Amino acid sequence: MRNLFIILFLLQFIIINSQVYKVNSPENIIQVEFILEEGKAYYSVQRFGKDVIGKSILGYELENNVSLKDNFVIEAVNESSLDETWEQVWGEKRFIRNNYNELKIDLSQSIDNPKKISIVFRVYDDGVGFRYEFPEQNNLEKFNIIDEITEFKFTGNHTSWWIPAYHWNRYEYLYEETPLSKIDTVHTPVTFETKNGLFISIHEAALTDFSSMTLEPVGDFTLKTNLVPWSDGIKVKTKTPIKSPWRTIQIADNAGGLIESYLILNLNEPNKLEDVSWIKPGKYVGIWWGMHLGIETWGSGEKHGATTENTKRYLDFASKYGFDGVLVEGWNKGWDGDWIANGDIFNFTEPYDDFDIDEVIRYGNEKGVRLIGHHETGGGIINYEKQMDDAYKFYEKYGVRAVKSGYVNHGNGIKRLDENGNVVKGEWHHGQFMVEFYRKALTEAAKHKIMINAHEPIKATGIRRTYPNMLTREGARGQEFNAWGENQGNPPEHTTILPFTRLLGGPMDFTPGIFDLLFEEEKPDNRVNTTLMKQLALYVVLYSPLHMAADLPENYEARLDVFQFIVDVPTDWEDTKVLNAEIGDYITIVRRDRNSEDWFLGSITDEEGRNLKISLNFLDKNRTYKAQIYRDGNNADWKTNPYDYVIEEKEVKFGNEMTLRLAPSGGTAIKFIAQ
Amino acid sequence: MRNLFIILFLLQFIIINSQVYKVNSPENIIQVEFILEEGKAYYSVQRFGKDVIGKSILGYELENNVSLKDNFVIEAVNESSLDETWEQVWGEKRFIRNNYNELKIDLSQSIDNPKKISIVFRVYDDGVGFRYEFPEQNNLEKFNIIDEITEFKFTGNHTSWWIPAYHWNRYEYLYEETPLSKIDTVHTPVTFETKNGLFISIHEAALTDFSSMTLEPVGDFTLKTNLVPWSDGIKVKTKTPIKSPWRTIQIADNAGGLIESYLILNLNEPNKLEDVSWIKPGKYVGIWWGMHLGIETWGSGEKHGATTENTKRYLDFASKYGFDGVLVEGWNKGWDGDWIANGDIFNFTEPYDDFDIDEVIRYGNEKGVRLIGHHETGGGIINYEKQMDDAYKFYEKYGVRAVKSGYVNHGNGIKRLDENGNVVKGEWHHGQFMVEFYRKALTEAAKHKIMINAHEPIKATGIRRTYPNMLTREGARGQEFNAWGENQGNPPEHTTILPFTRLLGGPMDFTPGIFDLLFEEEKPDNRVNTTLMKQLALYVVLYSPLHMAADLPENYEARLDVFQFIVDVPTDWEDTKVLNAEIGDYITIVRRDRNSEDWFLGSITDEEGRNLKISLNFLDKNRTYKAQIYRDGNNADWKTNPYDYVIEEKEVKFGNEMTLRLAPSGGTAIKFIAQ
Repeated sequence: MRNLFIILFLLQFIIINSQVYKVNSPENIIQVEFILEEGKAYYSVQRFGKDVIGKSILGYELENNVSLKDNFVIEAVNESSLDETWEQVWGEKRFIRNNYNELKIDLSQSIDNPKKISIVFRVYDDGVGFRYEFPEQNNLEKFNIIDEITEFKFTGNHTSWWIPAYHWNRYEYLYEETPLSKIDTVHTPVTFETKNGLFISIHEAALTDFSSMTLEPVGDFTLKTNLVPWSDGIKVKTKTPIKSPWRTIQIADNAGGLIESYLILNLNEPNKLEDVSWIKPGKYVGIWWGMHLGIETWGSGEKHGATTENTKRYLDFASKYGFDGVLVEGWNKGWDGDWIANGDIFNFTEPYDDFDIDEVIRYGNEKGVRLIGHHETGGGIINYEKQMDDAYKFYEKYGVRAVKSGYVNHGNGIKRLDENGNVVKGEWHHGQFMVEFYRKALTEAAKHKIMINAHEPIKATGIRRTYPNMLTREGARGQEFNAWGENQGNPPEHTTILPFTRLLGGPMDFTPGIFDLLFEEEKPDNRVNTTLMKQLALYVVLYSPLHMAADLPENYEARLDVFQFIVDVPTDWEDTKVLNAEIGDYITIVRRDRNSEDWFLGSITDEEGRNLKISLNFLDKNRTYKAQIYRDGNNADWKTNPYDYVIEEKEVKFGNEMTLRLAPSGGTAIKFIAQ
Repeated sequence: MRNLFIILFLLQFIIINSQVYKVNSPENIIQVEFILEEGKAYYSVQRFGKDVIGKSILGYELENNVSLKDNFVIEAVNESSLDETWEQVWGEKRFIRNNYNELKIDLSQSIDNPKKISIVFRVYDDGVGFRYEFPEQNNLEKFNIIDEITEFKFTGNHTSWWIPAYHWNRYEYLYEETPLSKIDTVHTPVTFETKNGLFISIHEAALTDFSSMTLEPVGDFTLKTNLVPWSDGIKVKTKTPIKSPWRTIQIADNAGGLIESYLILNLNEPNKLEDVSWIKPGKYVGIWWGMHLGIETWGSGEKHGATTENTKRYLDFASKYGFDGVLVEGWNKGWDGDWIANGDIFNFTEPYDDFDIDEVIRYGNEKGVRLIGHHETGGGIINYEKQMDDAYKFYEKYGVRAVKSGYVNHGNGIKRLDENGNVVKGEWHHGQFMVEFYRKALTEAAKHKIMINAHEPIKATGIRRTYPNMLTREGARGQEFNAWGENQGNPPEHTTILPFTRLLGGPMDFTPGIFDLLFEEEKPDNRVNTTLMKQLALYVVLYSPLHMAADLPENYEARLDVFQFIVDVPTDWEDTKVLNAEIGDYITIVRRDRNSEDWFLGSITDEEGRNLKISLNFLDKNRTYKAQIYRDGNNADWKTNPYDYVIEEKEVKFGNEMTLRLAPSGGTAIKFIAQ
C-alpha cells in the first residue's frame, strides 16, 4: 500500500511536469509537438504520425551562467493560421502559397530574475519552421549568447549530403554522401534520405542580426546547433527584443519535393523595397573566364583583361546576342598587390589607366548594354565599408544596376574595427559580424538602385524575398574550379547534388555555359567534366535570376547553333516543376518563361548515362509547341566524346511522351515554343 | 635491344590471345563485350559506355575433369537482330515489343577431344540475356555438369534486395536490404541499386531441363552461379543438344523501369498451346483463410472446412459478386495424417464423406461458378506422379479449369524413383528433377484444359509465355504469414519490395483482400500489418491473372462499400504503367482493363505515410472519367487506426493532377470509369 502511494505520487509528479502541445499542418501531413518536461523545452516532428525528428531539446546558454534552457514554465500558448498567396518580384515561381498553422509558446522561468523567451512553430504540409523570440523584458536587455542548444534528433542513420564547416569562411567544398553517423560539423542546407525514402533538409530562414547555424553531431543520430562565433568566442551579441532566424525542416516524399517547397521563402518577411522597377533578372557575359584560363590577368600589364578595348568587344558581343550586361573584373586599382592577404589595397572608384570607364559606359549605352560592376574586397571589410557609399554612388552615376561583390579570404578571418576604432582580427564570413555586414552591403546597395550578386557570400536564407535586390550569389563550388589546380574539377555528380543542397537556400551564380570544355591550349591538364549539352541544361537546372554565359565570345561564335539556347533561355519564371530526380544521380526540371507561354527543360546526369521517359503534361492543353531539342549525340560521353550533339525540332503537345537520352555526364536542354 | 624484342614478342602474344566482339542494343543504350583471352571466355556489360557488369568469366565444369571453361578458340561469330511485337494471351500488357541485337559466339577447344559450346547474347535497351548452347557433337553426348562458373562482377557495393538460398526448397523469406558485400547465397531475382541510381536485377528466363540458378558471393562485388544440385551433388544431368536457361540482367534508370521491362518474357519461347480458348484469368474466393485463422481445418472432423454446405455458401457468395471460382482446400483424403512428413498419403480423386463433389459441381453450374481444384502433394512426388493423370481427368470431367497445386515440404528434400524403380531421397524443389516435374505437371495439365496456380513452386522465369496455362504461383511470403506464429507477419515494407524482386519473375498469388485485419477473436496475437485500403491497392500493385479475395464472406458482407473495389477490379490488362516507385518504400501502378476503357490505380507505402502527387496523363485524352477513390482516412494508421477510410467520387480528365495521401502502411485504390 505504501509503495502504491509512492507510485501514485511519482505518477502525479510526472504528469504535472510534462505538458504537451500539438499543432498539425493544414492537411494534417505533419505534426509538431512542443513538450515541457522537468522545466526543459523540447519539440518533436511527426509526419503521418511517425517521428521524423524525435524529442529534441530547445534553448540557449547566455554569458555569465545565465541559462535559457531550464526552469521553464509556460506563460501562454497561442495558435494561429495563415493561408495567403503572394507574388515574387522575380523568381522560379510567380505565385507562392503560404499556408501554415502556428503554435507560439511563451515561456518564463521559475527562478529569481526569470527570463522570458518564446518559441514559435510554423507547420506547413512540406515542413516546419521554428524560431526563438526574446521579448523586451526587465531581466534581459543587452546579452550575449554563448551557445544555442537546439537539437535535431533523427530517427536513423540516414544517407546524408553535406559539406564540412571546418572553418567558418567558405562553402566551396564537394558535397559528401555518407551515413549520418559519418558526418562532420556541417553547413546548412544539409539534406538526408531515410531508409524509408523520406527526404529531409535542415536549413535556416531569414538569417538576420545573428550568426549562422552549423550543425555538429552529438551521437545517437542527433545534430546540435553550433553557431559560428565572433573572434572572441561569443556566438551572438544582441539585445531584446530580438528574434532568431527560423530553423527549418523541409520534408518530402521524393527529392524533387524539396525543390518544389517554398518554405524558406515563406518564412521570410515580405518585400521591404518600395520601388522595385529597377530590379531586373537577366543574363550577362564578361571579362572573367580568361583570367581563370590564365590568358588574361586581373592585375595590370600586357595581359590585363579589363581594358577599354576588350570591354567594347564584350559589349559588342552582348549587344549582338541580347545580353543585359557585361561584367568586368580587374578594372579598379588594387589587383597588383597581394590582395588575398590584404584586401585593404582595393580602390573602388579608381579605374586602371587602360580602362576608360566613361568611354565604356558611353559605348554600352549606345549598344543598349549595361556594365555589371565588380567589388572584390579580398575580405578587407574595413576598407570596403569606408568606401562603400562612394563606391555605390560611383556606379549609380554610371547607370550600373548590378554589382558582383567578392569576399575572397582564405586566411584566419576578417578584420573589423571595434567601437573604439581599434582593429580586431579573426571574424568569420559566417559569424554575426559578417552576417550584418553582408546585409548592410545589400541594403545600402538598394538605396543606390543596385542589385547584388555576392561571391564568397553568407549563405542564402531567403532574404531575397525581403530585399529583392539580393539577386544571386555563389556559396558553393562553381564553374571556375574546373580551370584550377590538379584534379580540382567538379566531378560529374556535383551539379546533380547542388539543387538538393546549396540551391534549396536560394539562387546560385554558377556561371555555366563553357563551350571549349577541354581548353587544351590554355590549361591542358584541366577540363570541364561534362558534355557540351550538359552546359546548356545547367541554365534551367541551376536556378539563378542572373546567369552568366561564362565562356569567351570566340568559343560561342564557333558554335552559334548551340549558343542559340543560351540566347533564348530566360532567367525569370512563371512556374517550376521537377519531373524526375535522384540526389547525386540525375534531375529534370521544366520552367515556364515569365514573359511568354514558352517552357524550358533542363535535364542532367552524373557519370551514369540515362534514358529517362517524361510526359509533357506541363504544357498548356490548348496549344501546340515547337520543341527545339539540344541533346547529346548517340556516341556522346563526357570523357571520350563530349562534343557529340544533335539539335532537332519536333512538334509536341500536352500529354506527349518523350525519352531523354543523357550521355554519361550529359544533358538535354529543350525550348518549347508555344504556337 | 634484346629486351625490346622480348617486349614486342609478348605484346604480340597478348594481342593474339585477346579477341573482343561487341554488340549494342538497338538504341545503343547497352553494350555487351565478349572477350576471349588466354583461351578463356568472358563477357562484360556497359550502359552508355560505362561498366555495369565488369569482365566476368563464362563456362562450365563437367564430370570426369572435362572442362568447358578454357582452351577455347572461336569457330564462328554471328550477329542478328529482331524487332517484333507479339500479343500476350493474357497479361499485364497486351502487346509486347521484342527488339534486340544478338551476338552468337561458337567456341571449340584447342585440345584433344575438343568440345563445342556456343554463347548467345541478346542485347535489349532494357537489359541483356545470354545463354549457353551445347550443340550436337561427337565428343559430347550424355554429360553431367558439376559447376557453372558464370560470374556477374558488379562495379561497387550496391544496395541489394535478396532472399537467402540456405536450402533449396523455399522462397518464403523476408527480403533483406544490405550492401552487396553483405549478401549470402541468394535466389533470383536479386535486385540492386547502384550509388549512381541505376537499378539492376539478375534472374533467369526459360528455366527448362536445367537446375535453378542461385548466386553466391565470391568477393570483389562478384556473384558466381551456384546451380541447385541433385541429391548426389551433380548440378545438371543432360545430353546434347541442349540450351541453358537465359541468364538475365535487367537495367533501368529507376525502380519502375524494372517493372516496365518485359525482357524475361521476351526471352521465352512463344505460346506452344494451340487452343487457348479455355485459359481465362479471373478472381476467386475459397475455403482457405478459415484454416489459417484456426476456425476451420483441412482435415476431417467437426471443424472441417471443405464440406458440401460450406462450399455451397462460398458458391452463393461467389455467384452473387461475380467471382469466377471457389477454391476448396481439404476436400480430398489424406489431410488427417502427418502429410507434411509424408505427402504420399494424399488421394487426389477421393473426397471426404462430407464433401459431395457431384452436388457441389451441380450447384456451381447452376450458379455459374466453377470449382477451383486443389492438389496438395506435401512434396510426395512419387505418389502425385502416379495419380496425376487420373487426378487431372477427374477434374476435367467435372469442368474444373484451374488447380492450385501445393508442394509444402520443409524437410530435407523430396523422394523420387530412379530408373530402376528405387526410391532416392533428397531432391530439392529447385533442382533439375523438380524443375522437370513442375513442367510435367504443367504440360500434362494443359492436355486436360487445366490452368495451374502453383504454391511452393519453382520460381517464375516467364514460362507462362510458352504455356499460358501457367497462370500464377506463390514463391514468396504471401498473406498467410500474417496469421502465423509469433511476430511472423509481413512487415509494412514487404509488399513494396515484392514488385521489384519476386514479381519481376512473373505473377504471384499473394491472396490479398483481408478485411478483418486484426482477427482479435481468432488469433489475437496476430494481425495484418496494413490499413484496409492497402489491401485493396494490392490487387493492382501485385500482378496476378488469378487473384483471390482471401477473407471470409461475412467479413466482406460487413463492408460491402469497400468490397465493391474487389468486385470491380479486373485481372487481365491492356497496359501497365508505374507512376512512381522506390524499392521498399512506395509504389503507384496504373493498369488499363483489357476489356474496357477503364483504368485502375493501386498505390501502397511502407510504414512511412506519403503525400504523392501524380498526373493523370495515362487516361485517354478524348474522354472524361468518373474516379471512384478508395483512400485512407486522414487519421488512418496501420498500427492505431487501420479501418479509417474514405470512398469518394470525382470527375477527372487526362492531364489532371491528383495527390495520393497514403497513411503509414496505407494505400489508395482507384477505378477510373470511362464515360
